[in-house]
Amino acid sequence: MPGNRFGNVFNVTTFGESHGVALGAVIDGVPPGFRIDKEKIQKALDRRRPGQSHLSSPRKEGDQIQILSGLNTDSVTLGTPVTLMVLNHDSRPRDYQDILEVFRPSHADYTTYKKFGIKQTSGGGRASARETLARVAAGAFAEQILSQVWPDFSVVAWVDSIHDLDASSKTPEKMTRDKVDKSIIRCPDPRVSRQAELLIAKVKSQGDSLGGSIYCYIQGVPEGLGDPVFDKLEADLAKAMMSIPATKAFAIGSGFAGGRMLGSEHNDCFLAKNKQVTTLTNHSGGVQGGISNGEPIYFRVGFKPPATIFKEQKTVNALGKNVSFKPKSGRHDPCVLPRAVPIVEAMSILVIMEHYLRQKILINQVQELNAKLRQKKARKAKKDIS
Amino acid sequence: MPGNRFGNVFNVTTFGESHGVALGAVIDGVPPGFRIDKEKIQKALDRRRPGQSHLSSPRKEGDQIQILSGLNTDSVTLGTPVTLMVLNHDSRPRDYQDILEVFRPSHADYTTYKKFGIKQTSGGGRASARETLARVAAGAFAEQILSQVWPDFSVVAWVDSIHDLDASSKTPEKMTRDKVDKSIIRCPDPRVSRQAELLIAKVKSQGDSLGGSIYCYIQGVPEGLGDPVFDKLEADLAKAMMSIPATKAFAIGSGFAGGRMLGSEHNDCFLAKNKQVTTLTNHSGGVQGGISNGEPIYFRVGFKPPATIFKEQKTVNALGKNVSFKPKSGRHDPCVLPRAVPIVEAMSILVIMEHYLRQKILINQVQELNAKLRQKKARKAKKDIS
Amino acid sequence: MPGNRFGNVFNVTTFGESHGVALGAVIDGVPPGFRIDKEKIQKALDRRRPGQSHLSSPRKEGDQIQILSGLNTDSVTLGTPVTLMVLNHDSRPRDYQDILEVFRPSHADYTTYKKFGIKQTSGGGRASARETLARVAAGAFAEQILSQVWPDFSVVAWVDSIHDLDASSKTPEKMTRDKVDKSIIRCPDPRVSRQAELLIAKVKSQGDSLGGSIYCYIQGVPEGLGDPVFDKLEADLAKAMMSIPATKAFAIGSGFAGGRMLGSEHNDCFLAKNKQVTTLTNHSGGVQGGISNGEPIYFRVGFKPPATIFKEQKTVNALGKNVSFKPKSGRHDPCVLPRAVPIVEAMSILVIMEHYLRQKILINQVQELNAKLRQKKARKAKKDIS
Amino acid sequence: MPGNRFGNVFNVTTFGESHGVALGAVIDGVPPGFRIDKEKIQKALDRRRPGQSHLSSPRKEGDQIQILSGLNTDSVTLGTPVTLMVLNHDSRPRDYQDILEVFRPSHADYTTYKKFGIKQTSGGGRASARETLARVAAGAFAEQILSQVWPDFSVVAWVDSIHDLDASSKTPEKMTRDKVDKSIIRCPDPRVSRQAELLIAKVKSQGDSLGGSIYCYIQGVPEGLGDPVFDKLEADLAKAMMSIPATKAFAIGSGFAGGRMLGSEHNDCFLAKNKQVTTLTNHSGGVQGGISNGEPIYFRVGFKPPATIFKEQKTVNALGKNVSFKPKSGRHDPCVLPRAVPIVEAMSILVIMEHYLRQKILINQVQELNAKLRQKKARKAKKDIS
Repeated sequence: MPGNRFGNVFNVTTFGESHGVALGAVIDGVPPGFRIDKEKIQKALDRRRPGQSHLSSPRKEGDQIQILSGLNTDSVTLGTPVTLMVLNHDSRPRDYQDILEVFRPSHADYTTYKKFGIKQTSGGGRASARETLARVAAGAFAEQILSQVWPDFSVVAWVDSIHDLDASSKTPEKMTRDKVDKSIIRCPDPRVSRQAELLIAKVKSQGDSLGGSIYCYIQGVPEGLGDPVFDKLEADLAKAMMSIPATKAFAIGSGFAGGRMLGSEHNDCFLAKNKQVTTLTNHSGGVQGGISNGEPIYFRVGFKPPATIFKEQKTVNALGKNVSFKPKSGRHDPCVLPRAVPIVEAMSILVIMEHYLRQKILINQVQELNAKLRQKKARKAKKDIS
Repeated sequence: MPGNRFGNVFNVTTFGESHGVALGAVIDGVPPGFRIDKEKIQKALDRRRPGQSHLSSPRKEGDQIQILSGLNTDSVTLGTPVTLMVLNHDSRPRDYQDILEVFRPSHADYTTYKKFGIKQTSGGGRASARETLARVAAGAFAEQILSQVWPDFSVVAWVDSIHDLDASSKTPEKMTRDKVDKSIIRCPDPRVSRQAELLIAKVKSQGDSLGGSIYCYIQGVPEGLGDPVFDKLEADLAKAMMSIPATKAFAIGSGFAGGRMLGSEHNDCFLAKNKQVTTLTNHSGGVQGGISNGEPIYFRVGFKPPATIFKEQKTVNALGKNVSFKPKSGRHDPCVLPRAVPIVEAMSILVIMEHYLRQKILINQVQELNAKLRQKKARKAKKDIS
Repeated sequence: MPGNRFGNVFNVTTFGESHGVALGAVIDGVPPGFRIDKEKIQKALDRRRPGQSHLSSPRKEGDQIQILSGLNTDSVTLGTPVTLMVLNHDSRPRDYQDILEVFRPSHADYTTYKKFGIKQTSGGGRASARETLARVAAGAFAEQILSQVWPDFSVVAWVDSIHDLDASSKTPEKMTRDKVDKSIIRCPDPRVSRQAELLIAKVKSQGDSLGGSIYCYIQGVPEGLGDPVFDKLEADLAKAMMSIPATKAFAIGSGFAGGRMLGSEHNDCFLAKNKQVTTLTNHSGGVQGGISNGEPIYFRVGFKPPATIFKEQKTVNALGKNVSFKPKSGRHDPCVLPRAVPIVEAMSILVIMEHYLRQKILINQVQELNAKLRQKKARKAKKDIS
Repeated sequence: MPGNRFGNVFNVTTFGESHGVALGAVIDGVPPGFRIDKEKIQKALDRRRPGQSHLSSPRKEGDQIQILSGLNTDSVTLGTPVTLMVLNHDSRPRDYQDILEVFRPSHADYTTYKKFGIKQTSGGGRASARETLARVAAGAFAEQILSQVWPDFSVVAWVDSIHDLDASSKTPEKMTRDKVDKSIIRCPDPRVSRQAELLIAKVKSQGDSLGGSIYCYIQGVPEGLGDPVFDKLEADLAKAMMSIPATKAFAIGSGFAGGRMLGSEHNDCFLAKNKQVTTLTNHSGGVQGGISNGEPIYFRVGFKPPATIFKEQKTVNALGKNVSFKPKSGRHDPCVLPRAVPIVEAMSILVIMEHYLRQKILINQVQELNAKLRQKKARKAKKDIS
């Protein structure tokens, strides 16, 4: 209940402050028997790590993943809790000493203080984007399980827009992470990528920041995942996305634009082909009545510009006085979008993983039952004969 | 875990199928000592009820609320589970017999069948919008508690757009439910309301359906509600909204448009005034770092057009054959927006209520502790003297 | 979290006060596809009902079960929440008016008041044994599912001792509920049953009350149920039993007496026979390391004498004054043991059901995975050929 | 849900296998503002550590506690998750290679394999008593919070019996951990302590093992903790104790013996003295109707003899064949009771802590409400005047 846990069956608890000893995640509910490649987790962390390009925070963190529990000596899951940990190296609590005096505009300083009655000694504490490394690690862990279960499973996200630059993505089903990573903006539209690079550099030099949106496309998820009432698949995806720092909006399938369509335009007609049911269109975004229908799941997530800017701003200090504030130092991204791409992917995977495991309770329920009834009948028949 | 429960501390479980005996909610975690007015719950249900106008479903349901447990004879909460129930009267399972044969496009029939391995014998089962009456009842119950705790608490939602008609709402802080209800569309912009009424009537006559969006504005919530990581207030609001049938998008504060602003434009500068901290702007939508900052909380929810249309459509039947389908009968809304307004309000209230109770664990924690330490010192001092 | 819910996957929330409108349970997590016989639930309630014999409370309650949701018209579970309800008829809140003035010794009046800050207007509120009818109904519901899954599943409990009378039960594996019910004491040892009947009648005439213990024997549970750390099967059974009113002790397998054995005496040696693994002894009580081993599960539960006695007692009133107290009226059992038997059975079944569903997540995990890998290889092979 | 988590509000997840890299606990729900002394946690771990005396396992583990998150630089809790970790040093997976071939009698090997479908590569995995170090650390952490809140809070456990030696403890209210630790058996009855020391040495030399019981006495807990239905305080204590490896029985207050008393003997009459309510006797063990009544809470826990003995035993191997088995090596306790004492204390503290935090939601509910109503009235009065 206390808010640092995600998922009820695949149960991820993240821990660690931005400028503490370590950050990580404990995952309870990992199914046994899956071989895990630590390097794949490292690769995901590397995509989220600061200092990847001249456009992101220069904080130097190797972010080397350690697995403290849950695997046997062959790297196979035991069904016990998995602990993923990264030690902090380049934490500089002193950078934040001036912050202790003021509540930075649109940061979590003020609300966190009001909630907990205690000021974090440094940085953003748990509200810092640094916490998301634990999510990325947990997501990369879960992805390896789902990829073994569903060979066609894939989750690919990319930057869809930066400020007023909108990318076009005509064939999302062909997108791969490699293609996305060819752009340091993680935007696969070459024109927009180039323009965005220039724009970010310019805005950075002005001490300002930029927002935008990320598009996520999920393939290879079977029918039946999600619940019909509160835990609809899209509801859990929305929560997952809106729990990422700096997000302000979520839209699945047709999104807000769907409200401008007629029912006869919006309905996704079913089509049976080769004993498989598909839909002619996919305005639903792969989810109907809260449950996956086997079509690709896609959605967009809106990010506001980061709150940390290097401009003079009016604010209030801890004594309740109006003051002017301009951060002296600190290592921040003028635009978080490129580094947020693996976070969006990771959170998507955690939602899918949770509902995959939940659905295992139902799958074959009736079949299993029928099998038992057949056995019973067979036993009876045998008795009657003897 | 199984998906029919909302909230961990204010724990609402809804039950009942669209065409079963009864629907309702059991609420575990109701705090004791609050007087409840049953009529206020009834009033909320009446706003959601079918048959309110010539534009909504003609299904005749009195939707009379019964309270089976949780109150003493003076209608005061006991701290025990509260059970709210409505009996179904005008259920017509037979209307749906043809549906048993086909999977209706963009309905939950197909996915529900794939999930549970069993066809609902009638109507939409749990995926039906009829389930939401239990949410409205639970929300109206919770609202009475919060209104006693925070005298200035108010939640008002209204129709923000229908199809291509966009309402303007310049002074949301002055909106009331009475003002909203003056329009049968529940759109307080008189021009848009009139046009929408004509548009819905026209589209209804064509057997088609319409979508749109709802705006929700919440006042009187103190600072400190919400958690900094997964259970951010906006994340829980997003989940709550996306769990309402037919929703496709959620945007808080600046929403997707916030991505087109610079950080220096978007940041909400703090201002101290009369010993109270406010913000000059409210692009955050009342939530920063996942926690309420005392400013109004506002968001938009996008709804797709209802899937039930009275036009010929291609689909697949239970045998996996391609067929044509046109519903013969059934009682449905060509546009759910007006009746969805109280549902949006109710789900918002449930989220706020949950986080209000969670925050009670933290509030005064340090104060209480300090008080104990003072007592300890006092005792010691006393001992030393004697 | 708020304490009226049992189980995380098979999620039972009970509601209703002893002297309110209705009592019941909502079960979320019921698997779909199981046919339910309402009469079997009624039969279980009849075994718990007051007024069964001259030795139990004369309160007249038909305790007729109603099923409000979760079944289709063929009485098959839909996978939606199941609501079980019983209306109160013979509630006499006035009988308890004198109680409002005093805190009855060893009752829940005082602690409930201290917890909730409000006095229940009548009877024991939620602490009353009447709440347990909802548990019996939920247990009888779950039992029908487990009996369809495991044809040899059986749970039988009986009175093991009353006051200083100890029953002997040599062949627990042959005990049935019919045999148990032949004694109005629900004690299958005829000598003890007769003596206990006389003892209870005598103690009743003196206005006093009696305690004792119940033995529960469970057969037909496969290996693998339960978790290795906190949610050990015996831990959840212990919690389930100690949540029944008036229980003071729980012992599984060898119990406290096991502490007086040597390891070499206590260890249950494994034996392979007909490709099945059994144990030579069963001091473990069917559970090892928190997980069922396929052997019968058995345990004992200790009950204190009921707190309601018709003798003068010293106590404190609501004003904090010392007073004398003797209840004027009220309908109570001098010994709850016979009616507690179906409650012990029901709570056992709820624990087994919960862990059965949890185990469905793990079962065949590796098999399923291997099957997928084989498919993958097959597909690859096919590709390589073409 | 997956079984490695304890508590819903004070939410402890333990991780780590007996012979893995590290063990520990992540605690979500730690209230902010409490100063923590790491040395007190270390001291608790030292009481549980192997190798404390010639009678316990010679495994050499420093068990040095590390705190990875949740505290600020002044060692004050931030309200964020606290991570406690101990690295394994003297793990010898090879010692257990022969075990991979057989299922040891009365160990968790067989059931764990049946549950997870995978053999732990070494030692007892999560079923090992080594997992309990994480519980002891979490308990010692929580104890520091409760001791700051309630100055008179104390939890002291001791060995109550070993095999057929029963200790007498006449004044449990005066017992302290220092007194308990004067005996290497942790039995404060000097005669029994001496005899038990000899008995354990003898049984150890025979390669056999011994069980017994532990008594736990808790003082300084206020009224109102615990829930009236499923989460009764005694139910949660029972679960906590029965989740400790090797436990077979739990008895609170009068326990099984209470069943042999008359109601008139067993009832704890209330007495008002100096404006405080106490009871003349305490057969209830400090809990009535599932809720603490302010009296001392006390209970007994029964432990079976450890399954690891160095004698030839019949068992079954992984191929399902009947074999003889005698462990060649391994470091085990012939009697776990002395080292289990701090585990019983720790689990008790976790239960109390959980219910302390839950009760914070209810405490002052009505008072807070009344205060708000007074404010409202005051405001109205003010308005009326102006």
